[in-house]
Amino acid sequence: MAKDMATPDTDTGIFTRRESEARSYCRGIPTLFASASGSVMRGADGSEHIDFLAGCSSLNYGHNDPDMKAALIEHISGDGIAHGLDLHTTTKAAFLQAFETHILAPRGMDHRVMFTGPTGANAVEAAMKIARKVTGRTNIVAFTNGFHGVTMGALAATGNGYHRGGAGMETQGVTRVPFDDYAKGLDSAALLDQMLSDNSGGIDAPAAIMMETVQGEGGLNAASAEFVKAVAEIAKRHGALLILDDIQAGCGRTGKFFSFEEMGVMPDLVPMAKSVSGFGLPLAMVLVRPQHDVFGPAEHNGTFRGNTHAFVTARVAIEKFWSDSAFEAELAEKAALIETRLTELADMIPGAYLKGRGLMRGVDVGGGELAGAICKRAFQGGLIIETSGNEDQVVKVLAPLTTPTDLLSRGFDILLNAARDVIAQDIAAE
Amino acid sequence: MAKDMATPDTDTGIFTRRESEARSYCRGIPTLFASASGSVMRGADGSEHIDFLAGCSSLNYGHNDPDMKAALIEHISGDGIAHGLDLHTTTKAAFLQAFETHILAPRGMDHRVMFTGPTGANAVEAAMKIARKVTGRTNIVAFTNGFHGVTMGALAATGNGYHRGGAGMETQGVTRVPFDDYAKGLDSAALLDQMLSDNSGGIDAPAAIMMETVQGEGGLNAASAEFVKAVAEIAKRHGALLILDDIQAGCGRTGKFFSFEEMGVMPDLVPMAKSVSGFGLPLAMVLVRPQHDVFGPAEHNGTFRGNTHAFVTARVAIEKFWSDSAFEAELAEKAALIETRLTELADMIPGAYLKGRGLMRGVDVGGGELAGAICKRAFQGGLIIETSGNEDQVVKVLAPLTTPTDLLSRGFDILLNAARDVIAQDIAAE
Amino acid sequence: MAKDMATPDTDTGIFTRRESEARSYCRGIPTLFASASGSVMRGADGSEHIDFLAGCSSLNYGHNDPDMKAALIEHISGDGIAHGLDLHTTTKAAFLQAFETHILAPRGMDHRVMFTGPTGANAVEAAMKIARKVTGRTNIVAFTNGFHGVTMGALAATGNGYHRGGAGMETQGVTRVPFDDYAKGLDSAALLDQMLSDNSGGIDAPAAIMMETVQGEGGLNAASAEFVKAVAEIAKRHGALLILDDIQAGCGRTGKFFSFEEMGVMPDLVPMAKSVSGFGLPLAMVLVRPQHDVFGPAEHNGTFRGNTHAFVTARVAIEKFWSDSAFEAELAEKAALIETRLTELADMIPGAYLKGRGLMRGVDVGGGELAGAICKRAFQGGLIIETSGNEDQVVKVLAPLTTPTDLLSRGFDILLNAARDVIAQDIAAE
Amino acid sequence: MAKDMATPDTDTGIFTRRESEARSYCRGIPTLFASASGSVMRGADGSEHIDFLAGCSSLNYGHNDPDMKAALIEHISGDGIAHGLDLHTTTKAAFLQAFETHILAPRGMDHRVMFTGPTGANAVEAAMKIARKVTGRTNIVAFTNGFHGVTMGALAATGNGYHRGGAGMETQGVTRVPFDDYAKGLDSAALLDQMLSDNSGGIDAPAAIMMETVQGEGGLNAASAEFVKAVAEIAKRHGALLILDDIQAGCGRTGKFFSFEEMGVMPDLVPMAKSVSGFGLPLAMVLVRPQHDVFGPAEHNGTFRGNTHAFVTARVAIEKFWSDSAFEAELAEKAALIETRLTELADMIPGAYLKGRGLMRGVDVGGGELAGAICKRAFQGGLIIETSGNEDQVVKVLAPLTTPTDLLSRGFDILLNAARDVIAQDIAAE
Repeated sequence: MAKDMATPDTDTGIFTRRESEARSYCRGIPTLFASASGSVMRGADGSEHIDFLAGCSSLNYGHNDPDMKAALIEHISGDGIAHGLDLHTTTKAAFLQAFETHILAPRGMDHRVMFTGPTGANAVEAAMKIARKVTGRTNIVAFTNGFHGVTMGALAATGNGYHRGGAGMETQGVTRVPFDDYAKGLDSAALLDQMLSDNSGGIDAPAAIMMETVQGEGGLNAASAEFVKAVAEIAKRHGALLILDDIQAGCGRTGKFFSFEEMGVMPDLVPMAKSVSGFGLPLAMVLVRPQHDVFGPAEHNGTFRGNTHAFVTARVAIEKFWSDSAFEAELAEKAALIETRLTELADMIPGAYLKGRGLMRGVDVGGGELAGAICKRAFQGGLIIETSGNEDQVVKVLAPLTTPTDLLSRGFDILLNAARDVIAQDIAAE
Repeated sequence: MAKDMATPDTDTGIFTRRESEARSYCRGIPTLFASASGSVMRGADGSEHIDFLAGCSSLNYGHNDPDMKAALIEHISGDGIAHGLDLHTTTKAAFLQAFETHILAPRGMDHRVMFTGPTGANAVEAAMKIARKVTGRTNIVAFTNGFHGVTMGALAATGNGYHRGGAGMETQGVTRVPFDDYAKGLDSAALLDQMLSDNSGGIDAPAAIMMETVQGEGGLNAASAEFVKAVAEIAKRHGALLILDDIQAGCGRTGKFFSFEEMGVMPDLVPMAKSVSGFGLPLAMVLVRPQHDVFGPAEHNGTFRGNTHAFVTARVAIEKFWSDSAFEAELAEKAALIETRLTELADMIPGAYLKGRGLMRGVDVGGGELAGAICKRAFQGGLIIETSGNEDQVVKVLAPLTTPTDLLSRGFDILLNAARDVIAQDIAAE
Repeated sequence: MAKDMATPDTDTGIFTRRESEARSYCRGIPTLFASASGSVMRGADGSEHIDFLAGCSSLNYGHNDPDMKAALIEHISGDGIAHGLDLHTTTKAAFLQAFETHILAPRGMDHRVMFTGPTGANAVEAAMKIARKVTGRTNIVAFTNGFHGVTMGALAATGNGYHRGGAGMETQGVTRVPFDDYAKGLDSAALLDQMLSDNSGGIDAPAAIMMETVQGEGGLNAASAEFVKAVAEIAKRHGALLILDDIQAGCGRTGKFFSFEEMGVMPDLVPMAKSVSGFGLPLAMVLVRPQHDVFGPAEHNGTFRGNTHAFVTARVAIEKFWSDSAFEAELAEKAALIETRLTELADMIPGAYLKGRGLMRGVDVGGGELAGAICKRAFQGGLIIETSGNEDQVVKVLAPLTTPTDLLSRGFDILLNAARDVIAQDIAAE
Repeated sequence: MAKDMATPDTDTGIFTRRESEARSYCRGIPTLFASASGSVMRGADGSEHIDFLAGCSSLNYGHNDPDMKAALIEHISGDGIAHGLDLHTTTKAAFLQAFETHILAPRGMDHRVMFTGPTGANAVEAAMKIARKVTGRTNIVAFTNGFHGVTMGALAATGNGYHRGGAGMETQGVTRVPFDDYAKGLDSAALLDQMLSDNSGGIDAPAAIMMETVQGEGGLNAASAEFVKAVAEIAKRHGALLILDDIQAGCGRTGKFFSFEEMGVMPDLVPMAKSVSGFGLPLAMVLVRPQHDVFGPAEHNGTFRGNTHAFVTARVAIEKFWSDSAFEAELAEKAALIETRLTELADMIPGAYLKGRGLMRGVDVGGGELAGAICKRAFQGGLIIETSGNEDQVVKVLAPLTTPTDLLSRGFDILLNAARDVIAQDIAAE
């Protein structure tokens, strides 16, 4: 059977033959990739693409950052621990030390770090379990268009109907309420407060209110600081913990390390994943305030909790980018550039408008078909970019935060040209 | 705050200060580890321990296997993709090719591979969702002492009360039945068949029956081939899929690549994780028969599904150990050695008896206190070893499958001496 | 033990000794009642009270209506069937015939009648099960302050937190949304439509939307015809059945037989109970459109479904009150009188305002303490009256629909005097 | 539409036209019944049938018992309360007094009486909620072939797959275990104890263990006193309440008032319904030990809790039949007669055997088709009799306990002749 198989270098038949139908990104981006560095991915055929997807914000520092790469090679060469369960390792200690020194302490956060199975969903599951254990309640309030993962507990909190449908059974334990600015004229926080305050409002007293400050998968819906603060106060008033899911919006994506900085809130629990390792390696964790750190040993466990290779790169990421304010300043400049260029895009399309915050931005172009056509055309032009939103109607820019300005500009040039072409074609077709 | 902190090399204060109370193995094995190779782990203080835990069967090929290590360093050095979502990469293609050629094809398995979030629990969740989607049913039959993970869907199938308690709410969708040989004189398969056949048996028609052929966390309970076959037939007769969770028992642990080989069964779904990457890197997947490969694109998704670094080492593992029958022959010999030495251990303790199968063996010493004392003493003697079972009453040997015979013997010497010491002490104390 | 017990005629000690703490109405209305007729209840001590509670709308035709009473005595005297499971009886046939002739046919309703266990909750459970079976979906949309019973399925749909708390576990299968006019400026129907239309709105496609057109326990919140119609259209658009729970608001309480008449909607399912028997005897049923009549024989069952004595009185009630339009005309007049008198009450109290519709009216006096005090004082004056609402803040008038005008006036005189006294006392106390 | 309708007296068209498909008994017993007294039911056409069904044990004292009938007519004639919510009435006081004096006190039971909605399912729901509130746990252990009703909470505890299917969604909160004598050689109590004692047995610590001592719908499976006692001890040992559902087996059906008398157990909660009213009128209640009487006022409520007419007849039933030991003696004699005659039946059919206990007896004839044919033939001969069991394979005798011996014999003559005819036919057909 194996004899006449083509070499993998040029053939993708093995994927259709042996990989499950659940595969997805590779359908729209069919290139066979071989290597990548910084913000550029290279195909086995030598092609190059600028990466405005960044592993869905898992590669905030780009591909194969040279310092992380060097540190990781050194670690492996020296027979550094690859897998150590949750044993003490010098590598984990160094990461925790760096995280305490450069992230937690300067922000006045007394949180502890719980390493969970290395997926965002697992961190969310752990956070929900902690909130339930702490409060003795079961209900978690979550929001329209929120996305928190697809395992049964996390899925209950996820709004997306397609993913919920995959459960094959009812999910439970979550009450859904409108997000900030969800319906015209609706004060979502006030409605939530009223329903929770009402003895017959029919919402069980919640263990937690869980939200993303910017909903990534949901369409780059950015909550206002006022809304986040109002929700934090509602949580407090009703005896619920506040879970801010910073899996996609954290690690600098909104311009600060945490997406909720400068909002005047202190979340009880912060699930993190994606760019925590800095290198795209699986790592997830929950920040938990000491008074809520109630799990017994391994009460929530998992073989791969704490990925040692990821600790190596995560430590470098923290030390390199977050030990002073230089990176934040750089991010502010890039965020401005992104806003300028996306405004150009939005101006091309009647009814289109900007979404998101910081470097987690996009344009709602009004429909999934148009957004998809623009992304497809951009890909042909050498740019990897994806859509998000409940109708896939948002062209989403998640470029590595480290993308050099000129490359960023080049990427936007491709994107704007793609949009122009698609619009021209549409007009021609009418 | 950071000023007077000790260097991480010698201080573990950072763990108590900033790591969650959920940490567990590090409590019984408090060494600060710095490196490891083969079956030996080295502390920051220069100490060495033989590893009979192997990352709970995640390091079946030992630490830092030189061939995997070389391939991984080469991959990183060449800016190979670190994180590629579920895009096509040459690395993934090469792994799939090797897995098809050396594992699936020779065993007549037409399964496809679904890469899930890189945790065993995530693979289990995906398998349960697939079974529910395929059958339109919700109920999953699982067994006493089964362990399948701690996210809400997987946790429902896990027997362990401590972990279930962590949910903070009722889990659902699972019916628990006795495992093989659970109660004296009980024919567990016949009882299951009767309850499912009984119109008023009160068990909803199941989407799947899910089992481990050897229950690792549950105490190394090995199902007989007859039981596994009977369960497979019951599943078929009642329109349920058969899920064989090979997360801990797979990848050679029982002496063959899959734990169910030579049992005459063909599972519909096989969740895998732990040693799939071969190097301890997070990777998980579900083998799914083509007719059950019903998920739409990303219907079950996750950022880290498909860990590219893990594909590098996983491919090497497959090619190095499973391209011919040499390794299997070696495993048979080592299994015999393990059985001999554990029989010695069992003979020391009245009422103790062997558990498990292949290289997934242990001794039920009658109580958790004694088992714990033996493991603790063994650790002092230079051996990392853990307990399992509902009362932690089983001294469990999960040495790397590649452990050289002399090192294996040395490990057992330490273990037997430890047992002798503990027993002598106990007698002295009476 | 039984020797020296006082006769039950004058002693209520047996209740504290042997009746459960769950008893409730008897705490605020401690009279030991012996008999009743029309709108007057008589105590064992000879006292008389006008009844503005009417068994919570279970006695719409008053106590011991002479025609029903005569028919029932005749039935019993002639050894008419008392209990006949769901066998065919002449009594049931006569009821169904009358119900078809005078209720269903004139209103163009093709519904069938499903007799459930004789409680409103049981009818609601049956309706929810039918909707789930018809649609293959599980989710039921229910509203803030809705009340549908306290068995586990029905309770999930009930908003009241006190009752929900009694479950001792999570209820499931229901999504709660704001009722008409729930929050200032909120278009509740539009919000529901948006959340259901949104692919990521996070509300599972519903099997049914269930509502009361006037929420009795919830505080006499009357939905506008526009809202009911909008909800009916939303249900249709999203493939959900429309369940209008007419248990409390039906049987003439709002001025028509059904509360939803003249609103331009045709519900798929109508749970009924309370005044269906006309005499206060337990009887409940679900009206179900033929295409949704999908239960197999006894798939939903219950020993007491179809209470034969209740059929006797229910038939008389239909024939006596609903065979022509005279009763409806009478109800319109009484509704006007009630509105006038309750307006007087509302005018006495700053901020107080009218609630409800038809003969299901009340006044929100702003707080439960005041409402309770008024009711207590009215009881002392010879009037049985209760509160409702999430804070028990609504003084609720549910007088028998047959109460003669002069008695109705006398009742209101007592009520208004009671309010005056309480207010005067409050002022004096300041 | 109504014009040309036949009179209900001779026409059953109204049932097919307007009654739901959920109707059941009337399909096998299509007579249109008009009246009944004692153990005889009379059709509108003048036909007479002996009643061996007794409203599924709801008419233990027969139809229209003259003393209850007289009392009820007197009550109604005197404008006695028909419906009084849960207010104090002289009627309720008299019932409670009688129940205390003649039932509770002589048996040393300190239980209080909680009147629930007048269905068995409602009493079961209340008992389950109490157990959950008392223990703070959610899981209820129930048994194969148990039947406890079809509302969502009760249904979770019911084994019957047909009824469970009617839920349209997953039920929850119940763990199913094998009943006494369920599988050959299985010690069901020991298995339950082992699974509950096992830390990884996968059964959540239960709030209650709920069982019928004789499973009526499940096929007249009678638990041994040893089993009931063992289960009671297991419940105690594991901190669970013991719920003995005496809805069908209580009120004298097994020869004593309660089915668990003389077994040496004291249940915490006893749901009762069916024959409590003595007259077939809807009434249900839960006996609850004072220390578990934890519901707040109306925390579990329902409009029809406490059916006043039913209190009238229930009091007479208690006083007439249970104030001395005469009735019990009579029951013992009749039970012997029933056993003798059913043994004759069993002896006719190879493999057939007796089921049940006391006056709740039947014969398992091996299959539902044969049992159905016998019952059908018996009906033609003038006997109303039904099947039960998971395959409807049990011919079930639930004659009124008051059936005179000669009528009982006449009924058995019809039954045995019917069996003879069916068997002869079957042989002829071969």
